[in-house]
Amino acid sequence: EMQDPVRSRPKEIPHNEKLLSLKYESLDYDNSENQLFLEEERRMSHMGFRCLEISRWVICGLIGVFTGLIACFIDIVVEKLAGVKYSVVKKNIEMFTEVGGLSISLLLWVVLNSAFVMVGAIIVTCFEPIAAGSGIPQIKCYLNGVKVPRVVRLKTLVVKVCGVICSVAGGLAVGKEGPMIHSGAVVAAGVSQGRSTSLKKDFKIFEYFRRDTEKRDFVSAGAAAGVSAAFGAPVGGVLFSLEEGASFWNQMLTWRIFFASMISTFTLNLVLSVYHNKTTELSSPGLINFGTFDLECVQYSLYEIPLFICMGAIGGLLGALFNLLNYWLTIFRIRYVHRPCLQVMEAMMVAAVTASVSFAMIYLSNDCKPLKMDNSEEYPLQLFCADGEYNAMATTFFNTPERSVRSLFHNPRGTYNLLTLGFFTLTYFFLACWTYGLMVSAGVFIPSLLIGAAWGRLFALLTVCSAAQLGGIVRMTLSLTVILVEATGNVTYGFPIMLVLMTAKIVGDYFIEGLYDIHIKLQSVPFLHWEAPATSHWLTAREVMSSPVTCFNQLEKVGTIMDFLSNTATNHNGFPVIVQASGEQSGKLCGLILRSQLIVLLKHKVFVERAHSRLHQRKLQLKDFRDAYPRFPPIQSIHVSQDERECMMDLSEFMNPTPYTVPQVCTSTPPPLKGCRGPGDPEGPGTLPHGQAWARRTTPGPDVSSWTRFARSPSARPCRDTAQHVTPARRGSTAQALGSSERSKRGRQNVRPAKAQEDRP
Amino acid sequence: EMQDPVRSRPKEIPHNEKLLSLKYESLDYDNSENQLFLEEERRMSHMGFRCLEISRWVICGLIGVFTGLIACFIDIVVEKLAGVKYSVVKKNIEMFTEVGGLSISLLLWVVLNSAFVMVGAIIVTCFEPIAAGSGIPQIKCYLNGVKVPRVVRLKTLVVKVCGVICSVAGGLAVGKEGPMIHSGAVVAAGVSQGRSTSLKKDFKIFEYFRRDTEKRDFVSAGAAAGVSAAFGAPVGGVLFSLEEGASFWNQMLTWRIFFASMISTFTLNLVLSVYHNKTTELSSPGLINFGTFDLECVQYSLYEIPLFICMGAIGGLLGALFNLLNYWLTIFRIRYVHRPCLQVMEAMMVAAVTASVSFAMIYLSNDCKPLKMDNSEEYPLQLFCADGEYNAMATTFFNTPERSVRSLFHNPRGTYNLLTLGFFTLTYFFLACWTYGLMVSAGVFIPSLLIGAAWGRLFALLTVCSAAQLGGIVRMTLSLTVILVEATGNVTYGFPIMLVLMTAKIVGDYFIEGLYDIHIKLQSVPFLHWEAPATSHWLTAREVMSSPVTCFNQLEKVGTIMDFLSNTATNHNGFPVIVQASGEQSGKLCGLILRSQLIVLLKHKVFVERAHSRLHQRKLQLKDFRDAYPRFPPIQSIHVSQDERECMMDLSEFMNPTPYTVPQVCTSTPPPLKGCRGPGDPEGPGTLPHGQAWARRTTPGPDVSSWTRFARSPSARPCRDTAQHVTPARRGSTAQALGSSERSKRGRQNVRPAKAQEDRP
Repeated sequence: EMQDPVRSRPKEIPHNEKLLSLKYESLDYDNSENQLFLEEERRMSHMGFRCLEISRWVICGLIGVFTGLIACFIDIVVEKLAGVKYSVVKKNIEMFTEVGGLSISLLLWVVLNSAFVMVGAIIVTCFEPIAAGSGIPQIKCYLNGVKVPRVVRLKTLVVKVCGVICSVAGGLAVGKEGPMIHSGAVVAAGVSQGRSTSLKKDFKIFEYFRRDTEKRDFVSAGAAAGVSAAFGAPVGGVLFSLEEGASFWNQMLTWRIFFASMISTFTLNLVLSVYHNKTTELSSPGLINFGTFDLECVQYSLYEIPLFICMGAIGGLLGALFNLLNYWLTIFRIRYVHRPCLQVMEAMMVAAVTASVSFAMIYLSNDCKPLKMDNSEEYPLQLFCADGEYNAMATTFFNTPERSVRSLFHNPRGTYNLLTLGFFTLTYFFLACWTYGLMVSAGVFIPSLLIGAAWGRLFALLTVCSAAQLGGIVRMTLSLTVILVEATGNVTYGFPIMLVLMTAKIVGDYFIEGLYDIHIKLQSVPFLHWEAPATSHWLTAREVMSSPVTCFNQLEKVGTIMDFLSNTATNHNGFPVIVQASGEQSGKLCGLILRSQLIVLLKHKVFVERAHSRLHQRKLQLKDFRDAYPRFPPIQSIHVSQDERECMMDLSEFMNPTPYTVPQVCTSTPPPLKGCRGPGDPEGPGTLPHGQAWARRTTPGPDVSSWTRFARSPSARPCRDTAQHVTPARRGSTAQALGSSERSKRGRQNVRPAKAQEDRP
Repeated sequence: EMQDPVRSRPKEIPHNEKLLSLKYESLDYDNSENQLFLEEERRMSHMGFRCLEISRWVICGLIGVFTGLIACFIDIVVEKLAGVKYSVVKKNIEMFTEVGGLSISLLLWVVLNSAFVMVGAIIVTCFEPIAAGSGIPQIKCYLNGVKVPRVVRLKTLVVKVCGVICSVAGGLAVGKEGPMIHSGAVVAAGVSQGRSTSLKKDFKIFEYFRRDTEKRDFVSAGAAAGVSAAFGAPVGGVLFSLEEGASFWNQMLTWRIFFASMISTFTLNLVLSVYHNKTTELSSPGLINFGTFDLECVQYSLYEIPLFICMGAIGGLLGALFNLLNYWLTIFRIRYVHRPCLQVMEAMMVAAVTASVSFAMIYLSNDCKPLKMDNSEEYPLQLFCADGEYNAMATTFFNTPERSVRSLFHNPRGTYNLLTLGFFTLTYFFLACWTYGLMVSAGVFIPSLLIGAAWGRLFALLTVCSAAQLGGIVRMTLSLTVILVEATGNVTYGFPIMLVLMTAKIVGDYFIEGLYDIHIKLQSVPFLHWEAPATSHWLTAREVMSSPVTCFNQLEKVGTIMDFLSNTATNHNGFPVIVQASGEQSGKLCGLILRSQLIVLLKHKVFVERAHSRLHQRKLQLKDFRDAYPRFPPIQSIHVSQDERECMMDLSEFMNPTPYTVPQVCTSTPPPLKGCRGPGDPEGPGTLPHGQAWARRTTPGPDVSSWTRFARSPSARPCRDTAQHVTPARRGSTAQALGSSERSKRGRQNVRPAKAQEDRP
């Protein structure tokens, strides 16, 4: 029943980025403190809690190790494949340079690149489209509380790893760093659950962590470990998780995430050092290695500061241009390039064009430099240069992007002439822009840094311009500063980098959002921003919630529950539970039960009438809910006989007795003496599904008809096919998420009404 | 009415660290969303919100600039004063070395040191005792939500700055880094309010930020700016605020805090560079400057890792010993050294002993080294060494601690012999331990680093051992790693430092808490930790709250309000407001009003009977509440005539209509049909103050008698003279803080009952 949001979208409605997609559910970050939970906690010894704490650390360690190993694997395989490819092409070029017929070399290069990219594009489009791109937008959404389908599955990881190897080896203008973040997140989601649902393998460990809240914490750690492995930036990784994602944070979490990050970079460092036979050096902390800088190079003086700000502005402008072009391109792709074969063909075409352009640039360049003795160039192309010389253009185009960045950073002044750099910047800018958004696994960090470094060499301000370009595109701030500081290994440039990133962000934001945010919007993800918009305190919950409310009695008929859950018009994920006694008590809210809980109850047939026979059965425990997590079966797979439909289910043991509620807003004046009834008081014709006289009740309590001030999120628009987002105006505020799964990002609620809003007068 | 918790404690009850002090109120981190607030928000234009946002950035910039300038001021004055002192003493020693009579030099040194320290101790004890120590525990408490009296006042800042200058110039084993954090926090609190209450100067700017929530955010930034200026570690500063303090965090805040930190270190760098005539270099990012390390020195290999862990363990052990000794010493001081003159005398004695021990060590040492040509030693003492040589012991003892650290870090191998180092470690360890807790402004960072560096030279592992020693004492983790990485300027040592800090923390925690936590506990501060203790979900609110509840009607008699506020037995800071209509509605909660709000209302005589005459008056606005913030007058200063006592006050416009509430826990089985009444339902003899039949009401609504599951914080103990702390078991949970000012640390509530708990049966 869960359809792929990427592939199936164009078939249904014309894509409109102004809408939010109904296909995204929200994660459940609120712990259901029901009786089962309390009983389990009571049974646990202090030793048990300590063991849990130790398990968390062990899991973080494992996340670090596995993420590091995956990074190593990608690095080594890419180097091997790219090495083979470039050697073959180099040999071919050398063969044909003198005799003529370089078009054959070009053809060889084009074919090799296209073949790699074809493989990468096919596995992505056919097996796991969610593995396309860098995965950073998806992880941002996941950590924001959006359940992006299949984003943290094992299959996604496999496709991602293979895909990124193919696209980098295929010579596309992409990096392998962004995908590491996604990979780390998947590793974390897998390791922390102690099982793989795909492989049908349950290790029977870490069962306690099988719920959204715990899993999210580990996914934060995984994303951090990914950043750490990619850039050798453990602190940057922690800050990335903090800035981009984690909706909740505490001290222990910080420290554990840092631990995972450190282990990750250390594992990578160790394995790569052993692999390169430099065991005692430990000099490869990250996938991208900018090399060491001379201390003189990293000093700056006061008069340079205005220059830095200018660079930041240029970066912001170029970044905005990049994002705008990519935005148009993505719209075009969503409209016209949505069939897998077209997507694969586009990817191959980009690969072919990249190879051709590179070849043309190298061919037409006559920028010859003397060959150095230390063999710092991996694949020096002589081409038409004199003996003992090599083509300078080839060091940037005939190389993996990481190596190109390093060449640009470290080759001494005068290695490249201005024309070479200018051409390179221009072509690479458009290539990278065209490439991002293809159905291949690929990151945008390295291409951005490369573009920045290329125009940065014009000003001899490499680090600063790279930062400006990257900041202009992705608009990250603190975390990016720290990542770059750690990746370049020098702290001195922290201030300029911060200055530049800030300028780039301000300038860029004036024109268009950051690249990741654009893609999140284009995928119609209901993403919640940190702050509710100003002036939103005036909105009340009743203005944005749907009615009538679908709710259950504490003791409810199985048939009713089945009907409600099967009704596609009311496909809510959470239902208020009310008291069904006659008299005053009637209609009082006494808890909230989730769709997933009801499904587990129905599956185990926990009916009151079976209570007798259940004496033989074991009592339902939290374990049963954990076993079903996270892929709860759909209601259609639950079979209930006609007799059973007449049974009753007692929800009181399983519901969350203390859900978020919002008190009724009292009227103020005049006249306070008449009682506590506000404008939000339900006097309209709404009735409870069971026909209770809803409107007549005069006790405004924490029941299903009480609303409070809510804020509408900026993305919530009153239109068809939207997931309505409701943000309580104040953090940690009380709010009753009716007929919805709860997503509390610091108290925020995600309310997903079945249809359009029906406000009572 | 607000008494000094430090000075007055011993007079009242024998100090018992197991108790929490009633003298600490909590800050109000919950925004009162009353009608005034909503109206103000409605009146504000989008431009207004943008201006607010810009103001926040401007304030953070100003915080950075001022914090940086204060750091410069301290640095320059300390260097000048210490320079004068050491020159005088050096001249004297040189004079007496040959003729004999060095006891006169000793006397001179002792007198100079004691004089400086005396001045420092006198200003601290007489003017502002809260300025004693490093101030880090106090800032930790403030950011945790505890209102530590006078901690962010201008007077405190002045005393702190002068005090730290005196104690460092007085040769105590202290650093000037810790106090910078406190100074930054005070600067932030001052700048963000746009006025100084002490100086009676209101600049009429930044009025919007005159409330606890906004102020706290700026104080986080100030603390970060302080760290940044002290260590040249802007990222470390942000992480310090994150790890040690801020109870709330969001993305924009991170970035603003980072901005403040960066500006702070840049200001310091700029001013010091200009001062030292090195404008183009910008090479003093922090107060402590470890200098640049050779790249070879900072490499490490795999086999060293076990060694690092051992160093961490040693650091943890030594740190625990340090903390234990200091703990005993502090207990002793609290019991016997609480009169100002005694405190000043103790400080002077420590200064004298420090000088004498240093002199003896230098005198008895025969560790002569050839004088270098580059004059890297500031005050080389020849003493009994041959011409062209200098006494090695003097470089560590005859110097400010910062310079000593640098000497230890950078002097080449063999500069010191083992005996010198051993003696130095031993004596400095005890001196530093004795010094911390004196009534002088002083930090423990530098002494710890110095001790670590001293025994680190024995193993030739300077950075690692310094980190281990410091980590063993303060037990900071991520932030300390980053601070040290930034301060030493090399990223490579990040992994060893993390490893070492983790080991030191684990080992140290086994024996005793961190130094700051010890001092927080010894001051009986009601500090809330990040996590509620395990198994606390079972506790319900009613088990920890006091009864009967003191509450007001929506329309309340002025006399009643006056009486309640004046009653010292019910000195709560927040009161539930209930509906007073007869019938069902009666007793329903409809809001929460704070003591501070009531006092402002009483001061402005906002009585219903005056509504007519108020037509001429202007309506009360949020501005009136902001003007009174933060020093609301005590109730004793409000004068109300006997006639006015009969007037009525309408609270509905001012109360927070959506306070945190906890729903009644429903009973589960048996039998759910009987209604929704749980064990927490009040059936006892409690009555409302007005004699309403409290116990008879059967509608459990969100009223003052409803409780939910609460967790008791670990520090809450059922005893006299405690402030009871209540932590909702789950973050962002709903809770009704009755008769208390609210302190929501991610939803936590601080409940402060008037007397002991009286649980109903």
